[in-house]
Amino acid sequence: MAKPKTAITPTRDENYPEWYQQVVRRADLAEPSPVRGCMIIKPWGCSLWENMRGVLDGMFKATGHKNAYFPLFIPKRFLEKEAEHVDGFAKECAVVTHHRLEAGPDGTLVPAGELEEPLVVRPTSETIIGEAFSRWIESYRDLPMLINQWANVVRWEMRTRLFLRTSEFLWQEGHTAHATADEAMAHTHKMLGVYAEFAETFMAMPVLTGSKTAGERFPGAIETLCIEAMMQDRKALQAGTSHFLGQNFAKAQDITYQSDAGQLEHCWTTSWGVSTRLIGAMIMCHADDDGLMCPPRLAPAHVVILPIEGKSDNPEQIHNYCRKLADDLRVLPYHGRHLEVEVDDRDLRGGEKNWQWVRRGVPIRLEVGPRDMEGDSVFMARRDKSPKDKASLPRAEFLSTVTDILDDMQSGMFERAVAFRESHTRVIDDAAEFREWFASPAGEPTPPHAGFAMTHFCGDVAVEEQIADELGVTVRCIPFGDDEPGTCPFSGKPSAKRVVWAKSY
Amino acid sequence: MAKPKTAITPTRDENYPEWYQQVVRRADLAEPSPVRGCMIIKPWGCSLWENMRGVLDGMFKATGHKNAYFPLFIPKRFLEKEAEHVDGFAKECAVVTHHRLEAGPDGTLVPAGELEEPLVVRPTSETIIGEAFSRWIESYRDLPMLINQWANVVRWEMRTRLFLRTSEFLWQEGHTAHATADEAMAHTHKMLGVYAEFAETFMAMPVLTGSKTAGERFPGAIETLCIEAMMQDRKALQAGTSHFLGQNFAKAQDITYQSDAGQLEHCWTTSWGVSTRLIGAMIMCHADDDGLMCPPRLAPAHVVILPIEGKSDNPEQIHNYCRKLADDLRVLPYHGRHLEVEVDDRDLRGGEKNWQWVRRGVPIRLEVGPRDMEGDSVFMARRDKSPKDKASLPRAEFLSTVTDILDDMQSGMFERAVAFRESHTRVIDDAAEFREWFASPAGEPTPPHAGFAMTHFCGDVAVEEQIADELGVTVRCIPFGDDEPGTCPFSGKPSAKRVVWAKSY
Repeated sequence: MAKPKTAITPTRDENYPEWYQQVVRRADLAEPSPVRGCMIIKPWGCSLWENMRGVLDGMFKATGHKNAYFPLFIPKRFLEKEAEHVDGFAKECAVVTHHRLEAGPDGTLVPAGELEEPLVVRPTSETIIGEAFSRWIESYRDLPMLINQWANVVRWEMRTRLFLRTSEFLWQEGHTAHATADEAMAHTHKMLGVYAEFAETFMAMPVLTGSKTAGERFPGAIETLCIEAMMQDRKALQAGTSHFLGQNFAKAQDITYQSDAGQLEHCWTTSWGVSTRLIGAMIMCHADDDGLMCPPRLAPAHVVILPIEGKSDNPEQIHNYCRKLADDLRVLPYHGRHLEVEVDDRDLRGGEKNWQWVRRGVPIRLEVGPRDMEGDSVFMARRDKSPKDKASLPRAEFLSTVTDILDDMQSGMFERAVAFRESHTRVIDDAAEFREWFASPAGEPTPPHAGFAMTHFCGDVAVEEQIADELGVTVRCIPFGDDEPGTCPFSGKPSAKRVVWAKSY
Repeated sequence: MAKPKTAITPTRDENYPEWYQQVVRRADLAEPSPVRGCMIIKPWGCSLWENMRGVLDGMFKATGHKNAYFPLFIPKRFLEKEAEHVDGFAKECAVVTHHRLEAGPDGTLVPAGELEEPLVVRPTSETIIGEAFSRWIESYRDLPMLINQWANVVRWEMRTRLFLRTSEFLWQEGHTAHATADEAMAHTHKMLGVYAEFAETFMAMPVLTGSKTAGERFPGAIETLCIEAMMQDRKALQAGTSHFLGQNFAKAQDITYQSDAGQLEHCWTTSWGVSTRLIGAMIMCHADDDGLMCPPRLAPAHVVILPIEGKSDNPEQIHNYCRKLADDLRVLPYHGRHLEVEVDDRDLRGGEKNWQWVRRGVPIRLEVGPRDMEGDSVFMARRDKSPKDKASLPRAEFLSTVTDILDDMQSGMFERAVAFRESHTRVIDDAAEFREWFASPAGEPTPPHAGFAMTHFCGDVAVEEQIADELGVTVRCIPFGDDEPGTCPFSGKPSAKRVVWAKSY
């Protein structure tokens, strides 16, 4: 097979996991660090996260939340309070046991000053924020308490992958307390709705919304809701979760309020989070064999301008033309901000520069050489078309249509991802068909994966576990919305609605 | 003495350190946490930090820096590389030695999974960022490398005080690498200039800029520059530092580049940072006995509107009038953003609400009752005037002058702080006068402090130490700029210029 010329090798088809790592590296998003399991988020990746953070933060504030910041460390006894929670999070965490390094006998440093009580680097902050809530909330007038935190968290991971699973990652965690179960549950749904809107409108990534089965719930939660997206290898990726915690944490941590009637009641709490994992999701949803493709509404730069000096007598004139063009673009409004523009006048070969921006996924690239300048035009390439598909456009026309082009790209990316998911989702009513669909061809333990299967399901944990063992497939979510009742193809028992099965990250 | 009615007790005069703690608590900025030395930054304090972060981030980007994110953990061997640095930072730090908690014999959790190499929670990131620079920088074309990180850091502190000195704090740390010493030194100065501009223009806090004496330098730095501000107890507070690291870290970490001429050279590096300590500085510069006073350009809210229902037949009408007023204010541009407005319609007594916003330091409070609504006017109080000094203003006049009022408040706060510093700064040429000025009156080991003394100084470390031991006073900075040479009043030796002495935080 003749290998196509692509910016990323191997291609998705050749080796999907390795393709992913190469996109992350070659798009300059992140790299492994010398600290086991921790990544370095490079400037391009950091800008993407800042843009995500900015949009989400605005959505959280618009829904009444305030940001606060809680300690990095959690005393060991806090984790011990909620039984399921401790099982879920005490297992693999970073434990601080000393508060000093001293010169040892051989001149190297050794830990000293042992702490009376070990501290855990927060894997999530329910326990430490719950302690604050127990002090902050006195009466029904203090409810609902709606708090969000942007922070780093640590979960010691044995097998890591940049953005998707790292020991340290950046995230936000919302924590709320309410007077009633209904209100808390409604809030759990509202915040999942915020995540779904963010994923679809900003990331151009279609998601299924639903609830998790018991085995996949957050430790200590009564109900975990999630958004699930299909990646280009047809596996599912959980992109965000919203948990209804009932009164579990409120009882373990004594979060109470005095009701209107003067009674002391336990609060009902929720928590919800998304993380830098979203960048991994964006890559696996939209990147291609030339690298990343940024959804315009989150792109760190919308347009990059590449001055091509060519055989010009007056290269400075070209650079001025480019800078002026950039200034004219930067004042154009685009969904509440302005266009971000880079002028790349580094002393590098034009082709090398061009491919760098292709790999980084900038939506629009403009080449400007002597002839373009003379004709008052630009030579445009769109990241969602072939790299060779370039067109000359009058400068004025480009300026008047550039935001439409970006919107077209944004909606095109979304539609393509929807079509991809639909073409790899199958409604299945027969256990044999299900097994056949998910079984890997002989000798191919890795992709191709089948996709999403929608089947009826009785809800029996043993059935789910057996399928997971046999095929490596789990229930990703029980989608919201109405459905016809039916029969579980695995147990023959009745089923209220269809669920979504898939291999997953 | 009849105690004046103030929102904060004790007053500054009665007990300055306790007054400070009370302002922090009563303005809802932060509180101690159950984790030793770590604070909880509450929503009002968090908003202040977000505003500071937003402005500074823009200034860093405008000077060519990009944000990146590096691991929270630093391998022990990294700290061991730079000898002075290890002395400065290994002493009190959080050491991670295990990666798991397991159920112990008595059912509690015990640390398990000992790490081969202990990890330190970053006290600062020169070593881990230096490692990345050593890989990222190859040739002179990669220079200057201008990186900034927003992060949490941990330095185990024995005696802590909210915002001023906590074991965990939030900060930014800039790290840059350059081809020449001159360029790196110029950059060190440039970033100190950014800090000074931020302090004076946004925090309304006048600062002295200069360099530190050898004893006060950052561990591993060749030169440490600083901004120093006078607090209301006349002590100095170091509000930001910018370090010229020479080639110390570049040599310890092998940060090299190939020069234009093809030679392998070591880079010259800088680092610089400001932290949540700035919030402490803002409080101690501007707060009074009624609580915080926010500089308008950093205020989380510029205007709070308090609907006063009074004996109105139609309270809903008043609330509507207030909401409409808020909407009209929110579209007004104010220094690159728009006015932030709160409408406080909580079911609380008016006086209680009013004092809450006084303590939080919102620049302008508006009371709107039935009579104001009928007269289409507002009843305004400015935070920089007495709480009783309120005035009725036609609504239209208020809308057309509100941003001028805020600017007037911002410049008034700055001018008052400058006048305060000047009135407590003395040029001294005589050692006896110096001693007398700084000696505490008998039985008063705490304030009043004298202020800043400007004296000639020979630079002898032994002289500086002796004065520190005797009077608790140190050289806060050697100010930039020209000065007449003179004679050191302590040693009689020649001195190139005057330095600034003060008690300090």
